[in-house]
Amino acid sequence: MARIALDAMGGDLAPLETVIGAGDAAAAGVDVVLVGDSGVIGRILDEEDLDLPVVDAPEVITMDESPSAGIRRKKRASVTVAARMVADGEATGMVSAGSTGAALAAAAIIIGRIDGVSRPAIATIIPTDSPTVILDVGANLEVGAKHLVQFAIMGSVMARVYLGVERPRVGLLNIGEEAGKGRDLERNAYTALEAAPIDFIGNVEGRDIGEGRADVIVTDGFTGNVLLKAVEATARTVGRLVADALSSPGEQEVQDAVRLVLPHLLAVRQKLDPEAYGGAHLLGVRGTVVIGHGSSSRVAIANALRMAAEGAEQGLVDMIEEGIERG
Amino acid sequence: MARIALDAMGGDLAPLETVIGAGDAAAAGVDVVLVGDSGVIGRILDEEDLDLPVVDAPEVITMDESPSAGIRRKKRASVTVAARMVADGEATGMVSAGSTGAALAAAAIIIGRIDGVSRPAIATIIPTDSPTVILDVGANLEVGAKHLVQFAIMGSVMARVYLGVERPRVGLLNIGEEAGKGRDLERNAYTALEAAPIDFIGNVEGRDIGEGRADVIVTDGFTGNVLLKAVEATARTVGRLVADALSSPGEQEVQDAVRLVLPHLLAVRQKLDPEAYGGAHLLGVRGTVVIGHGSSSRVAIANALRMAAEGAEQGLVDMIEEGIERG
Repeated sequence: MARIALDAMGGDLAPLETVIGAGDAAAAGVDVVLVGDSGVIGRILDEEDLDLPVVDAPEVITMDESPSAGIRRKKRASVTVAARMVADGEATGMVSAGSTGAALAAAAIIIGRIDGVSRPAIATIIPTDSPTVILDVGANLEVGAKHLVQFAIMGSVMARVYLGVERPRVGLLNIGEEAGKGRDLERNAYTALEAAPIDFIGNVEGRDIGEGRADVIVTDGFTGNVLLKAVEATARTVGRLVADALSSPGEQEVQDAVRLVLPHLLAVRQKLDPEAYGGAHLLGVRGTVVIGHGSSSRVAIANALRMAAEGAEQGLVDMIEEGIERG
Repeated sequence: MARIALDAMGGDLAPLETVIGAGDAAAAGVDVVLVGDSGVIGRILDEEDLDLPVVDAPEVITMDESPSAGIRRKKRASVTVAARMVADGEATGMVSAGSTGAALAAAAIIIGRIDGVSRPAIATIIPTDSPTVILDVGANLEVGAKHLVQFAIMGSVMARVYLGVERPRVGLLNIGEEAGKGRDLERNAYTALEAAPIDFIGNVEGRDIGEGRADVIVTDGFTGNVLLKAVEATARTVGRLVADALSSPGEQEVQDAVRLVLPHLLAVRQKLDPEAYGGAHLLGVRGTVVIGHGSSSRVAIANALRMAAEGAEQGLVDMIEEGIERG
């Protein structure tokens, strides 16, 4: 089983939720190593009656230092050590729910890019009944057409590995369907994507999100970041409005009805749960790197570890390397 | 009452829904003039037993001709004539649910920009329990910092007029909260917005959509277009999943419960109805111009006409002119 290093100190709820999440993942068969302050982690393992390997990494990169300077200076920070383990082949992947900037810097500086990848990108899966891989969602605010082609190749691998789609349909995020739409970036990318070894279906619009038109959507990291957060916020807002509408005191009859209907509504919420896939994937580096939400719960951590292990076992990195070579 | 010219031929459901929507708006006190094929419109008015003024405009700008060429060539197209009425002072605003490109071109070429406005922008109101004006959502794919400042001024006027917010809080759409975040555009705009005569609250993220942090959100037209469509799509997807979950055949008891709960869920849908505000507003031209969705129903048309009339009466154009002068 592929070994995954977990930055046990990263995230708002670390190390308690990270350690418990690691325990859940281990119980499900993931080979996980906890990386962080061994004293603190040891106490939690004792309390929770868990037995997991720990690699000591007592330093912490704070939010007010530059991520890349922090990575370079603090050789014994948990995220640095986890990345070093991947670089040295002691782990095939890593998971961190700490600062995204620090995880990106650690991956770029320590793990390094896959040959031929110009720009690693952050990919995430938008969870609906027809889940979609979207990238970049924040690593590269401005990109060129050739980067979008690489994103398309890497995203197709991700859809194959995690969504089980044999021949992923790739769409270019744009403001209209026709080929000539968009900025220079989109017009150039359209032509380049038509020539790329992927199944390019043309432009997709914001309105296609969640509709299952594409398995992979490529865009620059600024647009992708804004879009992803807005989609999550909208689902949350609708959920909140539904909850408000159903919790306002009404007749007893309605309250009883709500109790009966609630499980069906909770099933919908589960379908849209952003924690289902454990976080974002940094594609294009020499390891499977999953970056969790800062607020990752044990469930999100366990899912992130499972996904990193799955990616590592299916050979995500090699598949991306092959795809980029062909592309 | 401000007179509003309606492009009665514009939209997938025109002219039947546009004419009936105009009738509803007129019944609510809006002074509306129908512009389009007077023969066809006359028959609908007869059938619906409505009495509204009609200006004949028999030509049609088709989807396959360039909007600006179409506007210049077809002097008697409904959208051209409606814009001409605004330019000549025969109407203070116009509504069209036809091609957005044609409406934009008609407004730019025939009605003309307000003095000092470099780029008219399309603004829309995202409907939640805390509605937010967002612009640009598609008129200008690439902009500079000074354009975002003008968007902020125009958007603030729109929030004052339509949302009744005395001192609208303006946020800059970005990928993080801190001042240094984003592309050159956002970094330059941040500084420029701090100096502008508006209530600038700093960066807002996609995650803030629907959370009521800002009354006005400014961004470039590419990002805004993608974002707006994705937000609408997500609300629609969640609604669809909820409807699916509640319509699957279950025990009779649950089905009865769903019937009792449904009115509460429909109230939520109404809060999120994109037709509530009738469409998008083209800000920065010398008239109140509302551009409806292609699929606008009679309700959307009536709302669009009411909003155009309200904007015209409250002096939206003059307020924008004053704001831009001061800015």
